[in-house]
Amino acid sequence: MSKVVFYYFDIKGRGEACRLLLAYGGQQFEDRRITAEQWPTFKLKTPFGQLPILEIDGKQYAQSLAISRYLGRKYGLVGDTPEDALEIDQNVDLFIELCLKGGQIMYERDAARKESLYAEAVKNVFPDYLERLNSIINKNNGHLALGKLTWGDFVFAGLFDYFIKVLRMPDLEKKYPAFQKVVDNVYSIPKVKSYSDSTNY
Amino acid sequence: MSKVVFYYFDIKGRGEACRLLLAYGGQQFEDRRITAEQWPTFKLKTPFGQLPILEIDGKQYAQSLAISRYLGRKYGLVGDTPEDALEIDQNVDLFIELCLKGGQIMYERDAARKESLYAEAVKNVFPDYLERLNSIINKNNGHLALGKLTWGDFVFAGLFDYFIKVLRMPDLEKKYPAFQKVVDNVYSIPKVKSYSDSTNY
Ligand SMILES: N[C@@H](CCC(=O)N[C@@H](CS)C(=O)NCC(=O)O)C(=O)O
Ligand SMILES: N[C@@H](CCC(=O)N[C@@H](CS)C(=O)NCC(=O)O)C(=O)O
Repeated sequence: MSKVVFYYFDIKGRGEACRLLLAYGGQQFEDRRITAEQWPTFKLKTPFGQLPILEIDGKQYAQSLAISRYLGRKYGLVGDTPEDALEIDQNVDLFIELCLKGGQIMYERDAARKESLYAEAVKNVFPDYLERLNSIINKNNGHLALGKLTWGDFVFAGLFDYFIKVLRMPDLEKKYPAFQKVVDNVYSIPKVKSYSDSTNY
Repeated sequence: MSKVVFYYFDIKGRGEACRLLLAYGGQQFEDRRITAEQWPTFKLKTPFGQLPILEIDGKQYAQSLAISRYLGRKYGLVGDTPEDALEIDQNVDLFIELCLKGGQIMYERDAARKESLYAEAVKNVFPDYLERLNSIINKNNGHLALGKLTWGDFVFAGLFDYFIKVLRMPDLEKKYPAFQKVVDNVYSIPKVKSYSDSTNY
């Protein structure tokens, strides 16, 4: 990839995994952070009306997971076989499913309804996902799949702050110490750490 | 793959793309359709508590998109380069995003709220997605990506009935004839057609 620009907002959110992967790959890239003021006009020129976008030699691609999987493939983080790639994809989708379920509640506008949806999810939805993720990560030595570093770990680490926020579980790592391990495993990689230390949040 | 079992319910739903892909690949597989009565006990033994599941020589994998992408790779339906694979993934994710937004409304339990969410989405959410998908498919000669058959077309075709249902747009093909082309392009492949003709729905 010769000229790479990555566009996202100045938050971790859905774009962080891609940035961390670019840093991991040692890829020089322009780290464009679109401001709230710039966004309405910028939005009109984007392929899907949303960020993040990865631009390679002028060609733009959207969708954070698609981009993360692509960068994972570029940088040797997809395992060795099609079955390996499937295992990563499967576990990423499980994690994202939980994020979406949590997000759906967080974005609920009716406050009373939001609390009742949250109470129901805490009882009937979240625990099952959390137990499954926890046992997956324990089985994989602090990774999301394949027992080693894959692009799935970057997705998990990049979205972890959001994950804690939508689940409203600041003490998640006490109950599930394995989760923090995935995050630490990613952020302690020297190239990732030095990129991350150079950003503002 | 030697012994393959595919588990899903006796509906098209999220499992259909995988079945059509297996048929396309000429893969012998056991087509297990779990009944409502069987499900509660069966669920306990599944990796993620959900269907579909692809079982290869006794090893089970969940998540319909992950499985479809895997089968696409097996059967030469992912294009030639990592950028090709990214383009498919990106467009599949756009389509799925719209399905999820529609599904979220369809599953709303409060009837009045459901109608007001639907009215808002018809005005402010669906048109933008539909226009984007339409122009993508037109640019790709009746395919979801790369201007030719990919596993993305199978995802689109397999979910199309659901898509029409959640959007409540039975005349969708009048407004967007390109959509029906993707579906027809998949179901007219001889191996896919003969599998599909052999099923009940
Ligand atoms: N499925 C997409 C979702 C992208 C998305 O929702 N982007 C948000 C920010 S996280 C956005 O661009 N919001 C501004 C807008 O929609 O106008 C992805 O994962 O990339
Ligand atoms: N993201 C998953 C979702 C799977 C899913 O929601 N499966 C539903 C049927 S479409 C299911 O198993 N429902 C029964 C249950 O959850 O008990 C996928 O695409 O495979």
